[in-house]
Amino acid sequence: MPSQRLAAVVSSPVRDLLALIDRPDVISFAGGLPAPELFDLANWRTAFDTALSGPHARRHLQYAPTEGDPRLRAAAAARMTARGLPTAADQLLITTGSQQALTLVAAALLDPGAVVAVDQPTYLAALQCFGMAGARIVPVTPDDPDTLARVFTRERPTLLYLVPTFANPTGRTLDAHRRAAIVALAQRHGVWIVEDDPYGELRYRGEHLTPMAAAGDRVIHLGSLSKIGAPGLRLGWLRAPAPLRAALIVAKQAADLHTSTIDQAAAAAYLDATDLDAHIDRLRDAYRERRDTMLAALPEIMPDGATWTDPDGGMFVWVRLPGGADTAQLLPVALEHDVAFVPGAPFYAADPDPATLRLSFTAATPAVIREGMRRLGKALTAG
Amino acid sequence: MPSQRLAAVVSSPVRDLLALIDRPDVISFAGGLPAPELFDLANWRTAFDTALSGPHARRHLQYAPTEGDPRLRAAAAARMTARGLPTAADQLLITTGSQQALTLVAAALLDPGAVVAVDQPTYLAALQCFGMAGARIVPVTPDDPDTLARVFTRERPTLLYLVPTFANPTGRTLDAHRRAAIVALAQRHGVWIVEDDPYGELRYRGEHLTPMAAAGDRVIHLGSLSKIGAPGLRLGWLRAPAPLRAALIVAKQAADLHTSTIDQAAAAAYLDATDLDAHIDRLRDAYRERRDTMLAALPEIMPDGATWTDPDGGMFVWVRLPGGADTAQLLPVALEHDVAFVPGAPFYAADPDPATLRLSFTAATPAVIREGMRRLGKALTAG
Repeated sequence: MPSQRLAAVVSSPVRDLLALIDRPDVISFAGGLPAPELFDLANWRTAFDTALSGPHARRHLQYAPTEGDPRLRAAAAARMTARGLPTAADQLLITTGSQQALTLVAAALLDPGAVVAVDQPTYLAALQCFGMAGARIVPVTPDDPDTLARVFTRERPTLLYLVPTFANPTGRTLDAHRRAAIVALAQRHGVWIVEDDPYGELRYRGEHLTPMAAAGDRVIHLGSLSKIGAPGLRLGWLRAPAPLRAALIVAKQAADLHTSTIDQAAAAAYLDATDLDAHIDRLRDAYRERRDTMLAALPEIMPDGATWTDPDGGMFVWVRLPGGADTAQLLPVALEHDVAFVPGAPFYAADPDPATLRLSFTAATPAVIREGMRRLGKALTAG
Repeated sequence: MPSQRLAAVVSSPVRDLLALIDRPDVISFAGGLPAPELFDLANWRTAFDTALSGPHARRHLQYAPTEGDPRLRAAAAARMTARGLPTAADQLLITTGSQQALTLVAAALLDPGAVVAVDQPTYLAALQCFGMAGARIVPVTPDDPDTLARVFTRERPTLLYLVPTFANPTGRTLDAHRRAAIVALAQRHGVWIVEDDPYGELRYRGEHLTPMAAAGDRVIHLGSLSKIGAPGLRLGWLRAPAPLRAALIVAKQAADLHTSTIDQAAAAAYLDATDLDAHIDRLRDAYRERRDTMLAALPEIMPDGATWTDPDGGMFVWVRLPGGADTAQLLPVALEHDVAFVPGAPFYAADPDPATLRLSFTAATPAVIREGMRRLGKALTAG
């Protein structure tokens, strides 16, 4: 009954996984959720009240321009400029979360049968999104420029999708040298790069890396307030190279006319009245401790031969179990022990490694992480 | 550079038109905007404050289920049930405005080359949305069941898109007899009906008509808070027949994961604390007077031979000028006289009638409508 395009996306893994979170007795390392107790609730409440007060209050309940609230675009542009990506407000399109930006890019760039190159493993809702657009998805290894060049030559992808900083699901980061090489290669082959950057400000050690978009004009940069502000507002932004901007705005208009006027106005008021950098420092301190707690527990619970990533920032640790393990079969055992993770296979565009799994460390306190890891250890022994 | 699919949607008429609204000296009958001075601002401010207070406040800033806020779904279902369309909360999917519902329906049902039948003229952003999905659009005359049956037989459309109550742009309403005939015909031919109903509660005379979705299980019904609450929140809902629901939820997840958690929570709080029916009564009284004011002015300013609709509700009057007029050429003349309308051609899927135009009467007070109509009369004489 559904369209072939949609039927091809057989399941909805993110959604099935989000369902695991709500059982209150489960300690979930599954969802990529920010910690709710760290939300800047009082200032958000003030920001909504500000947006619904004063002479422009009624305008914030009305239809609004597709591109987004001018004050929010200016504030986002200023933040990007400060992080080494010089950006003018009119280069930005406000999106309903950066998830929407993926759909807009797909609508604006992908004809059915177009090829999309993706890191492997990668964000599974991006795979889903490109799949729904009728694209053929080709996995690449961005860390290996020779292979990347061969794939660009052979497959002629329309775009390369990357989460170059603290990637979902691996937590890995592409270094400055590699970034420059990939941008140059994409430029040479006429490939668009989508640089999805929701986690870049959540760095727990090491030096900030300049976004790839600063190095070339074929990079579409996606930013988001979800991990540094609050995901419930569904606010992201897309920095589009000039030749794509008009098409993306048409796609955005067809998608939802514009993003919530009141949420945009509240975010503009929030950024105006609050020191977001100070808030991000608080997030960093808390998440760094959670990261360290999880990484300290891993050697105690993991079997010999297991490996895992050691992320400099973001939300995720990526684990590989030894000896032909299948984490999809481990998950029900883990749930019996009241702990959850995400099996790794759905993050692969091809040839999934069933021995992998993703753990998120941001949503639980250190004490809860320790207890959750203890449970996971018992599940690993039982499973 | 953009995809063929998108390049086919050559322009963005709604967007170009919204740009006309912001010149403060122009009296605009162009946009389909609700009157901002009638927004229930104080109660909305309270609703946001309620949603960001109390024990669940932090949850309202967090990621949330794709289907939508359970309280909002229940409240919307109760309203639909009360209007003659028995609905359970789990039949509804909350959408980011009903514009998004069109995109989701397109993603869930239309393969490239699928046929979509539409009323002629019809909502232009729906034409754009189906066009972007790669559909072939075939205009029909829903008031003529024989022609409709022939089109269903010959073109085998996947879906029929209708705004059956106070249509955009004509203001026309399909009567109960015709609704039943169309639903039966669609059922027989295996055609889905999309019943887009943003205006249904804005009735100024006559009796309420039961939604088409009550008559058959092949009708996808779209509701919205934009015209009865506030469009800035981008809140709509889609009542989906069971076989489509899973596919629509997957499409929604790819589109934006979920609609703004805080806007949904505020709307649920608003509907809980406020008498929306009393508010709609106030809107009806104000809009009825505006409608009457515009219709009273039309005979005074229109040339002999002009015709127009006489809507029972909604926001629009549809005008046809005599003698080979071209309203696209009239528009710049009207703007010179500081008044705006929408030329009719973009609302046609095929064979546009250039002598038509759309006037919206909701956003201006009666005094402003009278002045705007005087200006339009001068433009008609000058043009």
